Order: sequence, then C-alpha cells, then structure tokens
Amino acid sequence: MFSPQPIGYAKTPYHSSKQIPKGLDAKHDAEGVLEILPQFEAGLTDIEGFSHLFVLWFFDSSQGFDLFGVPPIDNRPHGVFATRSPRRPNPIALTVVELLRREGAHLHVRGVDMFDGTPILDLKPYLSSLPPEKLRRGWLAEAEARRPK
Amino acid sequence: MFSPQPIGYAKTPYHSSKQIPKGLDAKHDAEGVLEILPQFEAGLTDIEGFSHLFVLWFFDSSQGFDLFGVPPIDNRPHGVFATRSPRRPNPIALTVVELLRREGAHLHVRGVDMFDGTPILDLKPYLSSLPPEKLRRGWLAEAEARRPK
Repeated sequence: MFSPQPIGYAKTPYHSSKQIPKGLDAKHDAEGVLEILPQFEAGLTDIEGFSHLFVLWFFDSSQGFDLFGVPPIDNRPHGVFATRSPRRPNPIALTVVELLRREGAHLHVRGVDMFDGTPILDLKPYLSSLPPEKLRRGWLAEAEARRPK
Repeated sequence: MFSPQPIGYAKTPYHSSKQIPKGLDAKHDAEGVLEILPQFEAGLTDIEGFSHLFVLWFFDSSQGFDLFGVPPIDNRPHGVFATRSPRRPNPIALTVVELLRREGAHLHVRGVDMFDGTPILDLKPYLSSLPPEKLRRGWLAEAEARRPK
C-alpha cells in the first residue's frame, strides 16, 4: 500500500494513559503544539483560516491488535471498530483539535489527547458537523448512562 | 512505523473523479457498502449502535504528494494540509458516513465519496459534533462565496 511517514510530532502534557480524560463526557481541553517538520511547512499554507482540524496520528505505543476489547469506560467488550482502542489492524488515531494559532511550522491547538512525542501522519480541515440530534452513540451512551454519577 | 493493510473494500457508484460531488455545499448522499474482510468481521461487533462512522481509506489511485495544490472548487493554490487533496505525504482519506444497516461483514452506508474498490484502513464511531457556529472554514468558504450561483 504505502509507507507511513511522520509529518511532525505532537507536544502535549500527557506522559501516561491515566492522565488522558476518557469517555463521552470527558473534557478535552488540554493545549499542545503540533510541530510539523520543516520540509512539510509549506503544506500548512492557509491552514490558519480553519478553526478546527482533524489530526491523524500513529498509535506508536501500541503493538498488534485485538478484534474485541473492553474500553476503559465500560466493563463489557466491544468490537475494535466500534471503539477508539489503540490496538487496531491499522494503528491510526483521529483527534479533532481547535487551532488556536500558527507560528511557522508549529500549530498551537486545544484538545490534544495523545502522548507527548506522538508522530503525526496527517492534518485535514474540519469542514462540517452533523447535527447532534442525528447522532446515535450505541454502547458508549449506554455505558455512560450506567456509570455512577 | 507500521505496514498499512486493507480491512476491506468499498463498493460505491463512483468510477471517475468527475462523478464525485465536490465543495462545501456538495451533497454526499450516495449509498455504498463497506465490505469488511471475513477475518475482521468480529471487530464490527456493536458497531450497529452508532448512526455515523469515520471511514479511513487509502487514496490508492494517487501517487506522490504536492505541498501546494489547486482544489477542484477553487482557482487558487492552498497548502495540502488545508485541503482534502489525495496527493498527501500519507495518502489517507477520511469520510463520515451514515450507517444504514449491517449485514454480517457488510456495512450499508450513505455518504460515500471514494471510488468503487477503494481499500478501507479503519472504521471508528462518530461520537460528537462541533457546534456549526464555532466552525471557521477559511479559503473554502471564501471560494464558495466567490462562485457564481
């Protein structure tokens, strides 16, 4: 297919999984910096016009995959494609961040949820939202509802 | 990093780029089928509880990348990371689809925008939306505004 290559690395406050908020109602407001490599900087031209970005990144601390897993916020197993588990056939993660400002090849963003030093694979502009009332969230909504308040 | 592998292939009505609607106001309501390979079917468990999915797929008809490009709906060049160009350092695409129904390893979906036969890399549940009033869409909104009605 193709050989993935990092286009940069994320600078974030997270050094262990326990530090990262999880679940449907988790607040993801940690700030970080997407440090894009100099040879890709020109590809950022005009990115500052977008308020939000999709960040594709590499689950580099994960090895192998499982078809089933018990997510941290539930006690029941679910199929890997119905979860955000890092143990996926293709260990690619997706995070939506708010772009706060750009300084050359450094994008200051809010909403990071990856470890410090994580390799970034791609950035894409976030163009449109689905109306919240059209979303169904399956097992995740059920697990949240079961959770003691 | 890792070796990407297809988890399945998309069945869609599209065989050439011209057939695919483009732009901010494009309607993406074409139906298609994500045909997941039998060895990954168990990973779909519980996916039917979600109304929408992120589909990560491989731009397999693209070779190499450009840091700048002129998108089909504009006449000005933009940085690749501010566009959805297929000519990216990592040729990974992202599409949001509505999950209509599941038949075993086949997911019937609405909103496909990839060619028939495209390799699929990953599926993830779509969990939350950003409020539309918080989105800024940079050059794309400007290009749309300039376009003759």
